[in-house]
Amino acid sequence: MKKKDLTKEKKILDATVEIIIADGAAAISTTKVANKVGISQSNIYLYFKDKRALLDGVYLREISRLGQTAGMKLVLDPNEDILTRCFMYLKSMYDFSLQNPHSLYVLEQIKLLSKDAADYLAQLVGPKNPMAELFTAGINSGVLRQIDRSLSMTVLFSVIEKHTENLQNGLYTEADVSFETVSRMIWAALTVVPYPENLLNK
Amino acid sequence: MKKKDLTKEKKILDATVEIIIADGAAAISTTKVANKVGISQSNIYLYFKDKRALLDGVYLREISRLGQTAGMKLVLDPNEDILTRCFMYLKSMYDFSLQNPHSLYVLEQIKLLSKDAADYLAQLVGPKNPMAELFTAGINSGVLRQIDRSLSMTVLFSVIEKHTENLQNGLYTEADVSFETVSRMIWAALTVVPYPENLLNK
Repeated sequence: MKKKDLTKEKKILDATVEIIIADGAAAISTTKVANKVGISQSNIYLYFKDKRALLDGVYLREISRLGQTAGMKLVLDPNEDILTRCFMYLKSMYDFSLQNPHSLYVLEQIKLLSKDAADYLAQLVGPKNPMAELFTAGINSGVLRQIDRSLSMTVLFSVIEKHTENLQNGLYTEADVSFETVSRMIWAALTVVPYPENLLNK
Repeated sequence: MKKKDLTKEKKILDATVEIIIADGAAAISTTKVANKVGISQSNIYLYFKDKRALLDGVYLREISRLGQTAGMKLVLDPNEDILTRCFMYLKSMYDFSLQNPHSLYVLEQIKLLSKDAADYLAQLVGPKNPMAELFTAGINSGVLRQIDRSLSMTVLFSVIEKHTENLQNGLYTEADVSFETVSRMIWAALTVVPYPENLLNK
């Protein structure tokens, strides 16, 4: 039996991401990915049993990178103030997206391809994911708007993704449309409390 | 020269929409559409010169249907109160999406496929489209948030699209998540004025 090679697994995931960025997730096939990496298709199956497993692999890697950003430790700390946790979640997502301009687009593409699954992420990471708990705590403490979480997540993801895309396309610069401007809009949609001015430069 | 047939043009557009709903816009080819309609590929070219023209045709038809909804007359009336026009735009989009559950998804799919174009709609309908004028008037009068229009449109489209999808998937009903709940969230993101309670039952 062939041995698994972590460098090769990384190359396969990287190649998949590149194809998604260029042609969308619908364009992914194990043949195309194998060609791009320069290995045989049967070699790919050693790492990912099919196209679905490959897309799940990309999705989980992006989510895990997001979870490892500096601000996320504070976001996931149940002893921190809930308002601070919510704001830092917004800020961490924003910073992550600007540093990884294709990440949210790639996640979105994979989710679009899995639209039959009502909650794709829940299926992958289980219903007890830390974000679900943050949202419940935020609503119970009167910070977050009482609305289905998928709608709040849609605002957060889609605005930050669009803003990142606009910056990439040179439609405007961060001097024109700053974190403060974007986060005030998202904060107004997601919460029912005033914008935390004191946290802006934290 | 063959004669154009409006019924056939409609059938071609309908078939394209059906393929987009099932497999996404990336899956569209004139061959597939011809097969679905039951005509030859050369016959399609009589109506649409290529795949791009076909997608533009679908996009413009959906946009035009949206423009013909009852509330849109008021939205586009420059003599109406600007706050009322903004609210009715939100309400018209909401009603349209619930009555045409796949429309926003189809528009989104076509836009995703055209992501190189910074402002796809502007290219198709020209920069002086009535929505651009509504937004400028809304910002100048202090009703709408002063932020790049693409970000406001992203909130409007993505939240209504997600809500429509959630209703379709039976994730919740309109009794659980009402127009009022959804529109309060969108209103908070798009404007800097209180929610117009008096317009809710208009």
